[in-house]
Amino acid sequence: MNRKEFRDLASPAAAREAIDSLSLEGGVERVPLEAARGRVLVARLDAELDVPGFDRASLDGYALRARDTFGADEADPARLELVGEVHAGATPDVALESGTAAEISTGAVMPDGADAMVPVERTDTDADGDDVLIRTSVAPGDNVMFAGADVAAGERALGPGTTITPRDIGLLSALGIDEVPVRAKPRVGIVSTGDELVRPGEDLHSERGEIYDVNSYTVAAGVEDAGGEAVLYPHAGDDQDEMERILREAADECDLVLSSGSTSASAVDVIYRVIEERGELLLHGVSIKPGKPMLIGRLNDSAYVGLPGYPVSAMMVFRTFVAPAIREAAGVPEPASATVSGRLAQQERHEQGRHRLMPVGLVKDGDGEMLVYPVDKGSGATTSLADADGVVEVGPETDYLEEGEPVTVTLFSPDVRPPTLFGVGEDDPTFSRVLDRLENPRYLSVGTRPGLRRLRDGVPDVAVAAGPLERDFEGATELDGWEREWGLVVRAGNPDEIDGLEDLVDRDLRFVNRTTDSGLRSSLGAAVAEFAAERGTDRHEIVDAVDGFDLGLRAHESPARKVIAGDADAGLGLRETADRLDLGFVSLGEQPVRVLANADRTAKEGVRELEAALSDASTAERAPDRSA
Amino acid sequence: MNRKEFRDLASPAAAREAIDSLSLEGGVERVPLEAARGRVLVARLDAELDVPGFDRASLDGYALRARDTFGADEADPARLELVGEVHAGATPDVALESGTAAEISTGAVMPDGADAMVPVERTDTDADGDDVLIRTSVAPGDNVMFAGADVAAGERALGPGTTITPRDIGLLSALGIDEVPVRAKPRVGIVSTGDELVRPGEDLHSERGEIYDVNSYTVAAGVEDAGGEAVLYPHAGDDQDEMERILREAADECDLVLSSGSTSASAVDVIYRVIEERGELLLHGVSIKPGKPMLIGRLNDSAYVGLPGYPVSAMMVFRTFVAPAIREAAGVPEPASATVSGRLAQQERHEQGRHRLMPVGLVKDGDGEMLVYPVDKGSGATTSLADADGVVEVGPETDYLEEGEPVTVTLFSPDVRPPTLFGVGEDDPTFSRVLDRLENPRYLSVGTRPGLRRLRDGVPDVAVAAGPLERDFEGATELDGWEREWGLVVRAGNPDEIDGLEDLVDRDLRFVNRTTDSGLRSSLGAAVAEFAAERGTDRHEIVDAVDGFDLGLRAHESPARKVIAGDADAGLGLRETADRLDLGFVSLGEQPVRVLANADRTAKEGVRELEAALSDASTAERAPDRSA
Repeated sequence: MNRKEFRDLASPAAAREAIDSLSLEGGVERVPLEAARGRVLVARLDAELDVPGFDRASLDGYALRARDTFGADEADPARLELVGEVHAGATPDVALESGTAAEISTGAVMPDGADAMVPVERTDTDADGDDVLIRTSVAPGDNVMFAGADVAAGERALGPGTTITPRDIGLLSALGIDEVPVRAKPRVGIVSTGDELVRPGEDLHSERGEIYDVNSYTVAAGVEDAGGEAVLYPHAGDDQDEMERILREAADECDLVLSSGSTSASAVDVIYRVIEERGELLLHGVSIKPGKPMLIGRLNDSAYVGLPGYPVSAMMVFRTFVAPAIREAAGVPEPASATVSGRLAQQERHEQGRHRLMPVGLVKDGDGEMLVYPVDKGSGATTSLADADGVVEVGPETDYLEEGEPVTVTLFSPDVRPPTLFGVGEDDPTFSRVLDRLENPRYLSVGTRPGLRRLRDGVPDVAVAAGPLERDFEGATELDGWEREWGLVVRAGNPDEIDGLEDLVDRDLRFVNRTTDSGLRSSLGAAVAEFAAERGTDRHEIVDAVDGFDLGLRAHESPARKVIAGDADAGLGLRETADRLDLGFVSLGEQPVRVLANADRTAKEGVRELEAALSDASTAERAPDRSA
Repeated sequence: MNRKEFRDLASPAAAREAIDSLSLEGGVERVPLEAARGRVLVARLDAELDVPGFDRASLDGYALRARDTFGADEADPARLELVGEVHAGATPDVALESGTAAEISTGAVMPDGADAMVPVERTDTDADGDDVLIRTSVAPGDNVMFAGADVAAGERALGPGTTITPRDIGLLSALGIDEVPVRAKPRVGIVSTGDELVRPGEDLHSERGEIYDVNSYTVAAGVEDAGGEAVLYPHAGDDQDEMERILREAADECDLVLSSGSTSASAVDVIYRVIEERGELLLHGVSIKPGKPMLIGRLNDSAYVGLPGYPVSAMMVFRTFVAPAIREAAGVPEPASATVSGRLAQQERHEQGRHRLMPVGLVKDGDGEMLVYPVDKGSGATTSLADADGVVEVGPETDYLEEGEPVTVTLFSPDVRPPTLFGVGEDDPTFSRVLDRLENPRYLSVGTRPGLRRLRDGVPDVAVAAGPLERDFEGATELDGWEREWGLVVRAGNPDEIDGLEDLVDRDLRFVNRTTDSGLRSSLGAAVAEFAAERGTDRHEIVDAVDGFDLGLRAHESPARKVIAGDADAGLGLRETADRLDLGFVSLGEQPVRVLANADRTAKEGVRELEAALSDASTAERAPDRSA
């Protein structure tokens, strides 16, 4: 097998064809009725009995022969001899002759000889209870539910391929069926490789480059969403023998084996070798982005798909190529009406020549029109999809999409609901608590500057800005604002006796900053300029004298965590962060936090809900308890 | 407690209020990540670590100081001393000084001193491998994914109330979270009562009026659909002590107790007494149809709802009042966009004064417009809902709905898909096999006559008619037709030596007929008329001489089953039925079966698929193997 062929990329259509040529079906299994909900019936079920199984009284009253009531009415009742009674759940011990009647309860078996019944309200018994007076006339069959009237023996009950609903379970129950033949869920083995991957819950050694294994549980959840049964195999590391053993075991036990994880050459070598020895490689490399490094083949009798290592790529390939094949094998219909139309919120360029699957988020503008924006944190990001609602497919001939261009978004699932509010900007603990009060908000902590830029571009509903604002923001409406205390987060008890900026400048202390995107960094910049002016020196000299001033971390807690880890003596941060993490704090001031809304969207429901939540948020929430 | 108050029916709004006043919530539980899909997060989850946890090389190449590459290009490369290598999953054992570089793999930790990397494609090593030539210049941070660039410690990850998707599982995996706090599913105890009820799978004694318990498994499936956990308690019969014990046990163990089943006075008495002693009755009787006999109250700390006994009523009340409360407690959002608009296919009267929940089916007409028709097999039918797609609510002030009136249908669930083909008419084994080839057909075996009547009314797409047709059907297009052999189904081997109609007339044999709705009955009627003419007598005399001629059963297999049960010596039926059930058969002739389509719908996709399936159906299928 020539690894270089990897560069001859197959078309997405060829990849679909290759997967379709594999059999993923798991056969048939019998499940008890209580586990049948959502399963797919494998064969037609016909009624094997009549429902009800007997002629059944529909009301409380008297069973009789209809002929005996002909002509009877209120004024001129028919008098019938009472010859017995029949209760629900009991075998009638009476048979009716002409001129007789039997008392009967709702649901009871009609006695032999009776062909109709009269409800008790239209009757009287005579004084001694021997006779009953019937004050109405009835036709044969009146107030009787005949055997088989609901379902009759031999009737088609449920067709093959039916996805069993609670209502179908009602029908099956009525027929006494307590076990049904359904399609077995395709068993999908998930094999993850790579020395650097650690399963969630285990200890992570970042210093040696370990990261958590994202693909295993994510793909497993996707398999189950598609109607398959996921089998997670133990993590194989990069040990070639172990990997080979696990791949073979998975191929023996499953209908489909998915591998994902390491992109290391040695792991790929093992996969190639095992496929070469025990199977067949149908396709390697697909002209799609993300997702190029995809393998499709056979391992023994099992189908095999190698997913790309990067989580976003792995999930996009999974849902585009693998999930439909699992649904097909499971008999689960493709989800209905899972697309949304909208307009692209911003122009988007991309590399020509490859079919592109672009994860996107959705937000409604002020007029209720749906805007679609690409969600991408860049290569290697593992978590972008949690902030996306669906996918736009872009053909290989397109290299440019205009702002405002109409696009169709395939939602990740039919129950995806676009967020009610889309916010961007500074990460702020108070605002985060306010978000907790909203139904379904989305917030991207991109920092103050990028947040304001995006607000100006008209994509989000609101932006949260912190620190000194450089300019007025036309088109933005301030919804609310508060102050927050910022400064240096230091070790608990401040053992280094840090008092302020001068210590960072004059002493040999390791500092951790935030990125220039953040409002905290802007406030620090202003404080440094002031300090330089006080000392009568240049701000660059001050900055150069602080060890770590250039090391900017993206999120508001990261510097504090460097202090906890012992990698720094002080970090830029909030008093609230220091309090929460039980660290010391040296205040450098207060800075304003402003919540700014796109002026066109102040009437949007999500924005009004945010406004209400902001005004509801108690003073306690705005200024959290500092005694901690 | 006054049972007579039952007549003061509460409004549906009051019933909703009463249920809302109860607490169904199950509290909080922690579930492992692999079981978190679809569960509802109970608290906000913030990132507790940076992802990635270290500065990470994005490509294979060389880690270095960006400053050392300034000015380098293809023609004038920078020469750096190679001081080591760093692999993915390993702690760097090298630190870079100015003028040095280290070989680095994708995903590896950037060594101390390095602030950028150059991909291997833009480099050369010198002959002895001591130095590397860098043929491009890079800026600090180039080709490096910084710690926290994907998710940063302290960042808001998922908000409270999030329903966890596979994508969220990706985010949680990346954060190393292997257990999440979710809302416990509300535990819903299901108590069924009534001596006449038998659990599916057990033996049914129809002769003493037993029927299968439809509500228990159906309601359980509905509970699970709504996000609850169903607990089925053993069937209580009508034994009062046992019922009381089970009700109390369920109240102790569950958040909500649902009782259903017996409407017998003694069962209701026990429920009233237990509620009186250990709880509170909030409401009894709701002005709704179906569903009047509904109870709402408390049992100890558990909520209690008494569902009506009839399955259709029970399910309608369950989905209208109980399912929303379970979803609310489970944190599961109301299903989105689960309504469909259409026009009523036929006029519909109903009793004024009660809010009505009308189960309906959906069918598209020839123009693609949605028609809505009521589905109701009459009081006591247990299985109507399996043939329905959703519900139309009709207010208490309305007593009449016009044909063509626009209505809104609430689908039973968002994934309900109206059938592709809606057929009615004769139950025919050949046609049933043809239906098996279609994706999602619906067929109601109402018999030939009612089938043709409904076709004329313009509701179904097709009708199947058997036997001599009385008239031409304008507006109907014949899609296909075949002959089937009919006659008398008798005991295996025909021990009574029945030869034909004359034996039924002249001998003391018990016969079972079909209803006059069926095409088989029409053919029998024609044969009787002919036989009477041969004998030179009146057909009424012939009919009167056959014991059981008036006993018409609805479905095509029911007479044969009476023969098997020993209740009859001969039954009207098909050769195919006799063969399949290993019975004897006396042929009385062949009759035509015709598949007639509504002429306006011959272009409808489902009808065209049926046409194709009819023409595909092999001769073998049309005329099944008779050697059996």
